[in-house]
Amino acid sequence: MSTKVALLGFGTVGKGTYNALTTNADIIEKKTGKRIEVVKILERNQKVIDSGLAPKELFTQDYDSILADPEIKIVAEILGGFEPATSFMLRALKAGKHVVTPNKAVIAANYDLFKSTAAENGVCIRYEASVGGAIPVIETINKSLVANSITKIEGIVNGTTNYILTKMEDENISYEDALRQAQEHGFAEADPTADVEGIDAANKLTILMAEAWGVYIKPDQFERIGISKLTRDDLRLATQHGCKLKLLASAEKKPDGTINAFVRPTEVPSDSPLASVRNEFNGILLTCNMADLIFLSGRGAGKDPTGSAMAADIIALA
Amino acid sequence: MSTKVALLGFGTVGKGTYNALTTNADIIEKKTGKRIEVVKILERNQKVIDSGLAPKELFTQDYDSILADPEIKIVAEILGGFEPATSFMLRALKAGKHVVTPNKAVIAANYDLFKSTAAENGVCIRYEASVGGAIPVIETINKSLVANSITKIEGIVNGTTNYILTKMEDENISYEDALRQAQEHGFAEADPTADVEGIDAANKLTILMAEAWGVYIKPDQFERIGISKLTRDDLRLATQHGCKLKLLASAEKKPDGTINAFVRPTEVPSDSPLASVRNEFNGILLTCNMADLIFLSGRGAGKDPTGSAMAADIIALA
Repeated sequence: MSTKVALLGFGTVGKGTYNALTTNADIIEKKTGKRIEVVKILERNQKVIDSGLAPKELFTQDYDSILADPEIKIVAEILGGFEPATSFMLRALKAGKHVVTPNKAVIAANYDLFKSTAAENGVCIRYEASVGGAIPVIETINKSLVANSITKIEGIVNGTTNYILTKMEDENISYEDALRQAQEHGFAEADPTADVEGIDAANKLTILMAEAWGVYIKPDQFERIGISKLTRDDLRLATQHGCKLKLLASAEKKPDGTINAFVRPTEVPSDSPLASVRNEFNGILLTCNMADLIFLSGRGAGKDPTGSAMAADIIALA
Repeated sequence: MSTKVALLGFGTVGKGTYNALTTNADIIEKKTGKRIEVVKILERNQKVIDSGLAPKELFTQDYDSILADPEIKIVAEILGGFEPATSFMLRALKAGKHVVTPNKAVIAANYDLFKSTAAENGVCIRYEASVGGAIPVIETINKSLVANSITKIEGIVNGTTNYILTKMEDENISYEDALRQAQEHGFAEADPTADVEGIDAANKLTILMAEAWGVYIKPDQFERIGISKLTRDDLRLATQHGCKLKLLASAEKKPDGTINAFVRPTEVPSDSPLASVRNEFNGILLTCNMADLIFLSGRGAGKDPTGSAMAADIIALA
């Protein structure tokens, strides 16, 4: 018996998710005994439908038919943006379907609503791919570190800004020149605001805090400073201090229970594992009362890495 | 309803496991809804029993009474060594109890036997703590990377040798002097053979290959070279090559399916995340066909880190 899945959207991450589920279907079945079958893809871009990357008969433009199909147990939202992603996910949960998404902005904006809607309908919403791409940080917090009190979360969780900062340091170039390089290499969008102003990193920090501590602190409730005002002098100064300058998303839980959270350029000591996170890579350092330090790193974005995390969540739900 | 657990042994890791389950019992219950209760501890050392670290009435010297107790669902083996650890674990599985262990030597020596005995009796054996201590590498391979074909495993999986190599490099001292320091700091045993000759690392590589590829390649079936013959010159040469010398446990799966595995001192490029693994820390780099590179690091040994991984396995079984 296979588990039937619908994908909403067939852009970059949609293709990556489809790839991961199909290319490695035999490995997945051997490891888990489960067969995952993508039975519908919601997509209206005819070029994408005609691309041949998935059988044409999978495509539909009718979301209601997906919701009405009792055989579809899992809906993977990969549309991006706030709407219709938010309402589509809520409708899927209310229709008794599990939801998987990499959409950090939507989860961070409505964390409680998604969690309560899922619980009320006896289903789950999973979003490992929303933080750190392929890096299993949410699984690690919730499963592997479940017997720990996590005291500190420090992450380089935005690949665009880390790429820019690495280039600025390695090549001694200005922010503007490094941003241009990032855009040319596909690591920054034409409008880079959400990345360079730390909005994306703040969304991810909101999610990590919620997972680690069960608190919902919205992205606009803590300090957020981006990298767009940084100069070569700032990086030079960090080097002089024996540090690397990184856009750090950091949250610390004090013994009295208060949480100190921020996203801002921070000098990280060169011997910290965070200092070794270069280019578009992400890294997350967790401080815990039993495990001590746990560091995870890998690709925080991209078609296949994000697809890998989406597929893992889908398989876990199956 | 609580899940009842018996610990076999109350040495360092036994105490760490007990600590993790009791200190963070409220966190565990809040996160999972499960209450884990240690109801028996097999231990005959009277000093340990009298230590006050666990209630005296939990201790027993009668393993049969543990096996005969239908309420005990999980047995955590923390005796170390081959016997009676091996036969105690097999008896627990045959009695229909799940088993959790950090004992890499025993698992590597009898991987197939433990797996088949568990399957025949409808129970599980888990050993996250056996590789990389608190680092969630087995969970990552089996869950988070389930939609990946893993092509390469490279690990610094022995803290003792990594501590010695770090000291040799940092302080420009001989192998013998660094070993002495490691022994003084409790990072090396009086008889360091299993660590410095790469036996411990080979056991862990056997386990990682079995998890990643479903193949059982015993530790004596691949090349193993330890660090006891290394000199300051070897480390100096590595530095000249822009590398760090590390005791690497490495396994690569070629496109034709053959596996090339070894444990030996290896020059690791300075910009590899493996190069940043210092002192007694462990780190594992996984190369995958979807997620690309995933790097995990943390404490590979010690009371609470190992206890953290033991507790996570126990909770997952509960």
